[in-house]
Amino acid sequence: MRAVIRRNKQLVCDEIDELVPGEGQVLVRTLACGICGSDLHALHHMEHMIETSRRAGGGALNFDPSADTVFGHEFCAEILDHGPGAAKTLKAGTRVVSVPATLTADGVELLGYSNRLPGGFAERMLLTEAMVLPVPNGLPTEAAALTEPFAVGAHAVAKARLDPNSVAVVIGCGPVGLAVIAMLKARGFGPVIAADYSPRRRAAAEKLGADVIIDPARESPHGRWEQLGVPMAGAAQRMARMMGVQFGRPVVFECVGAPGVLQGLIEAAPAGAQIVVAGVCMESDRIEPAVAITKEIELTFIFGYSPEEFAATLDDLAEGRIDVSGLVTGKVGLDGVADAFVALGDPEAHVKILVEPSR
Amino acid sequence: MRAVIRRNKQLVCDEIDELVPGEGQVLVRTLACGICGSDLHALHHMEHMIETSRRAGGGALNFDPSADTVFGHEFCAEILDHGPGAAKTLKAGTRVVSVPATLTADGVELLGYSNRLPGGFAERMLLTEAMVLPVPNGLPTEAAALTEPFAVGAHAVAKARLDPNSVAVVIGCGPVGLAVIAMLKARGFGPVIAADYSPRRRAAAEKLGADVIIDPARESPHGRWEQLGVPMAGAAQRMARMMGVQFGRPVVFECVGAPGVLQGLIEAAPAGAQIVVAGVCMESDRIEPAVAITKEIELTFIFGYSPEEFAATLDDLAEGRIDVSGLVTGKVGLDGVADAFVALGDPEAHVKILVEPSR
Repeated sequence: MRAVIRRNKQLVCDEIDELVPGEGQVLVRTLACGICGSDLHALHHMEHMIETSRRAGGGALNFDPSADTVFGHEFCAEILDHGPGAAKTLKAGTRVVSVPATLTADGVELLGYSNRLPGGFAERMLLTEAMVLPVPNGLPTEAAALTEPFAVGAHAVAKARLDPNSVAVVIGCGPVGLAVIAMLKARGFGPVIAADYSPRRRAAAEKLGADVIIDPARESPHGRWEQLGVPMAGAAQRMARMMGVQFGRPVVFECVGAPGVLQGLIEAAPAGAQIVVAGVCMESDRIEPAVAITKEIELTFIFGYSPEEFAATLDDLAEGRIDVSGLVTGKVGLDGVADAFVALGDPEAHVKILVEPSR
Repeated sequence: MRAVIRRNKQLVCDEIDELVPGEGQVLVRTLACGICGSDLHALHHMEHMIETSRRAGGGALNFDPSADTVFGHEFCAEILDHGPGAAKTLKAGTRVVSVPATLTADGVELLGYSNRLPGGFAERMLLTEAMVLPVPNGLPTEAAALTEPFAVGAHAVAKARLDPNSVAVVIGCGPVGLAVIAMLKARGFGPVIAADYSPRRRAAAEKLGADVIIDPARESPHGRWEQLGVPMAGAAQRMARMMGVQFGRPVVFECVGAPGVLQGLIEAAPAGAQIVVAGVCMESDRIEPAVAITKEIELTFIFGYSPEEFAATLDDLAEGRIDVSGLVTGKVGLDGVADAFVALGDPEAHVKILVEPSR
């Protein structure tokens, strides 16, 4: 079958071996699979990602970066066949999504980051039967394929300790920031302040329900805290509380992932702010602990999502609590993936590109 | 009256103006006042501390570092006289402690970090009548003077999200680490693992109830997590939970405050750990966000304590929930303060030195 293979830090279309579903597995046809920012990074920096993962003690990324890999972990697929001993609760032809991890006889393979199993930039994949979720009737395939990136937003919001009066500032409106905005609104939190330099991303943030949209080139996103009732200084916060003034916990979602952003937020955020770090900065970064201490900042580094959050996100999409229409700005076949990776380097060009292997 | 004055980055004994209590103030005689690590740092680096405070937006430290300052914010004192219109609930002769902040007609002065009011390294001070707490009968003055540093521990434990099964690791057993250990035990948390290179500090940690005492020169304090039931890797934690294995949230208290310690903890702590940053690192520091993200680390930077935590700490000391006997390893008069600052540079020499201005 055909797939887009990462080989020598290039993306090439080539044939790979056909897949045979093993015990507990289903063979699926990939209908659509999103290109993630992690894929863009991994194309050139897979070695560093693997080394970071090893140092983090997880060993989740544990494969040979010099051997072939087929990316793609944001997919919607259709069941073709079941492995031996399958429960077959979901029949062939059922559209499904899944957390991108497949159980094999030798352990868990992370789809998209594996030498042994292909991810969604291939015509077919092997999934774990017990982990696939049927796409509820009527949810378009391209919306279902966004379950995975939006689950990241669900996890970010779950890890934030928001209260009903909380003001949330989302820094960066790429796919992660947009998912956070959508989930904040789906869960009834707000006001949500969204900041991004890109007009296209700001428009997407507005469409997903952000209450205040800010172009950081013109205005600091932190100029709104006091306007929205959150005193900036710890002393002012204590005084306000003593006088019975209610204000919500300030929460900042860092969805950029570049060096210097964290320290900028530590300095600019209100005292007592929780900074949920969802942007993945792969470089070493510099902070000044004394400033963070004086302001009692909390840095909550987050990663991924739980299977429950993934399932709840699919439900949010299917029930219309999150409207993703318009977010998919491009669709390509396998032979268009390499160009799509280049196009995604420009934030004005696209929000999300889906790969449709049968296209 | 006599005081130890910070002048030209030196400590000198000299006469300062007598104090007259204003509206809402009480004049007190300083009985004992601890020397804090912040004082040691401020002797040479006050300008930097003030600049950091300004950048943190609080402006709590807002005075002229080139003018005279009298340190001392960990005190027990005796009421001598009341200002005009005083409630006089506490009579002259009553021993008291107080959060080191005095309300004046021109605002709040932080005792020990002010050009206008002296801290406890002076024979007398002005306190706010409404904020002083009587020392419960029988609590020795030298124990009462430890209310302030132990309140820092109370705040650290309050900010940690411990659960009944939590394992807590305390890195650094200087005064802050010891206060954290004592408070963890007073609140019924444990096991508490305490690590310090200094035999004297390890002995103090043991006396305050730490369950496991570790010399990091011989053994990593992080070698005990698995032994105490906390899986290190996120995947192992998820697996354990799926199998119904209960384990508490891992919490690390960073009580050192030196560059590099944070990143060391980010790499060594279990996945999902909360690192409560109580050690004040005044220098710029380097972290690797990608490792913290992969492990879902939380950095909770903390500062000071609330008036309620301060009052609760006095109660803990008075009711014997914390036994501070043996922690005061030296007492000096005003003319011994400069030498005591030097002696405190060696962690083997002392745990806490009290200044007794009438000595």
